[in-house]
Amino acid sequence: MKKILLLGGFGFIGTNIMKYVDNNTKLKDKFKFIILERMARHPHGIIFKCIFKIYVGDFSDETFINKIFIENDIDFVIHSLSTTVPATSTNARFDVESNLISTLKLLGIMDKHNIKNIVYISSGGAIYGDTLQKVHNEEDAVYPKSSYGIVKLAIEKYLLSYSELYGFQSMILRLSNPFGKYHYNQHQGVINIALRKLLNKEPLEIWGTGDGIKDYIFIEDFCSILFRLIENDIESCVYNIGGSLPLSVNEICKYILNIDSNFEFKHVNASAVDVQSFELDITKIRKRLGKLSFKKTYEWQKIESEKNYE
Amino acid sequence: MKKILLLGGFGFIGTNIMKYVDNNTKLKDKFKFIILERMARHPHGIIFKCIFKIYVGDFSDETFINKIFIENDIDFVIHSLSTTVPATSTNARFDVESNLISTLKLLGIMDKHNIKNIVYISSGGAIYGDTLQKVHNEEDAVYPKSSYGIVKLAIEKYLLSYSELYGFQSMILRLSNPFGKYHYNQHQGVINIALRKLLNKEPLEIWGTGDGIKDYIFIEDFCSILFRLIENDIESCVYNIGGSLPLSVNEICKYILNIDSNFEFKHVNASAVDVQSFELDITKIRKRLGKLSFKKTYEWQKIESEKNYE
Repeated sequence: MKKILLLGGFGFIGTNIMKYVDNNTKLKDKFKFIILERMARHPHGIIFKCIFKIYVGDFSDETFINKIFIENDIDFVIHSLSTTVPATSTNARFDVESNLISTLKLLGIMDKHNIKNIVYISSGGAIYGDTLQKVHNEEDAVYPKSSYGIVKLAIEKYLLSYSELYGFQSMILRLSNPFGKYHYNQHQGVINIALRKLLNKEPLEIWGTGDGIKDYIFIEDFCSILFRLIENDIESCVYNIGGSLPLSVNEICKYILNIDSNFEFKHVNASAVDVQSFELDITKIRKRLGKLSFKKTYEWQKIESEKNYE
Repeated sequence: MKKILLLGGFGFIGTNIMKYVDNNTKLKDKFKFIILERMARHPHGIIFKCIFKIYVGDFSDETFINKIFIENDIDFVIHSLSTTVPATSTNARFDVESNLISTLKLLGIMDKHNIKNIVYISSGGAIYGDTLQKVHNEEDAVYPKSSYGIVKLAIEKYLLSYSELYGFQSMILRLSNPFGKYHYNQHQGVINIALRKLLNKEPLEIWGTGDGIKDYIFIEDFCSILFRLIENDIESCVYNIGGSLPLSVNEICKYILNIDSNFEFKHVNASAVDVQSFELDITKIRKRLGKLSFKKTYEWQKIESEKNYE
């Protein structure tokens, strides 16, 4: 049995990672989670069987993080914690201090305890940014627009540098836009936000024209890929993880309108940090894992409302 | 007359920038410098006519930096300050705090005072890193190895992001290895260090095989390019500035041996953060400025010892 320190356990991705293990007969005896959170219970009352221990505290508190490593035999870390999303990352210093510096502290502590395997959940759109080239592979130049994206890029570069300098194995996953169950964020994740607006009888605000094509993935399809990677050795590498579902926000709205004619939306000015358009080339992860299933990603149009995600 | 806030005024590059103005009849009435330094006098007693005011203090001290902007009508900033060089950037947190966070503080203060033009002295080798591709242009993917390079990359990305978000004009100059007068660093700048070792009758330590080809530029040729850019409007752009002088450390040693057979060198283990090999594609800056002169860069082999640089 492997013990994973999961940073960001009660977030959208963290919650889904643990629920995926809870619901998977093959995985549930293989992985237990130690999580670090700001609260002792999931804010929406979700219960997890795979949690071994919850540490309530602050990611930036070195003594506290060190204590977790002293008290537990951690096999590896999944880092899915961010204090910001692109739209809220308007204070660059806060972003650097709370995300980049805290991650450097974590890496220092991991090095001290000789635990050097880490999976970092990065972001496709925020890293690549808007360019004339629409489909991005892992070797492309990157143009982050938001502080959120710049900090994720700096963390990626430190992870790769620590691989060369200190023997870390840093697996970096550049995720496209995930959607699905256990999503509560008001600022990120347009599919979920649109369905929630429909439920609440509020209009969706579309930033800009809504024409830009972006890449979506159902969160369970991501979890499936993640565990296929984790069941092998963690090795230093950058992977794009997209769902091969390029859609514009206007197309998403059209689908939802077809399901429920009460759905309303209006266009507002684009946020300067919102990436208008990106698609992920997933050749590399396909080469690594073979056939990938995006069944759940493609089924999304059948979902009537966000209620079904809960 | 334009007032430039020069960060890193007494460093190798800053000293040369000001000496270039002092010695240039056309420039000396056009530019005055306000400098921020840790000491009131140049550590090697160099005197500058073009200094308008020296502020002695700490770059990370926001109140102090703000005071400089309150007390002076600054036209633009040249940022050539770094608390580290690649070989000494082993403490990532110190690097991020002293360079990245301090630069973010500076940008916040500039924004408040509505002074949005900045020239940032970045680094070609530290940014591009070691790749199979040897000649790099500004659109290439980047692979910084050292914390020094990662922090420079993050600063570049914030400068470009602030251009989009807040109307900054950020000119980023990715400099190759500069050499020449007023060089005192013991950890960076192999041509100067080699000549100094010869003067001091000490052997030069070559990191690794010495076979890797790197790009060199005589610092006065860089200053010439810098002022040709500055005399126009400062505009957001990234430029490689190399001297079209690709040399291996072994070739440099051979030249020096031909001049003085007392020159000694020995090979030691390569530092993991030292970039082994890079050349800069300077097509873009050539397109911007037309013909570039590298007269001084190509004359370097004639120089008998570092004495002539002083």
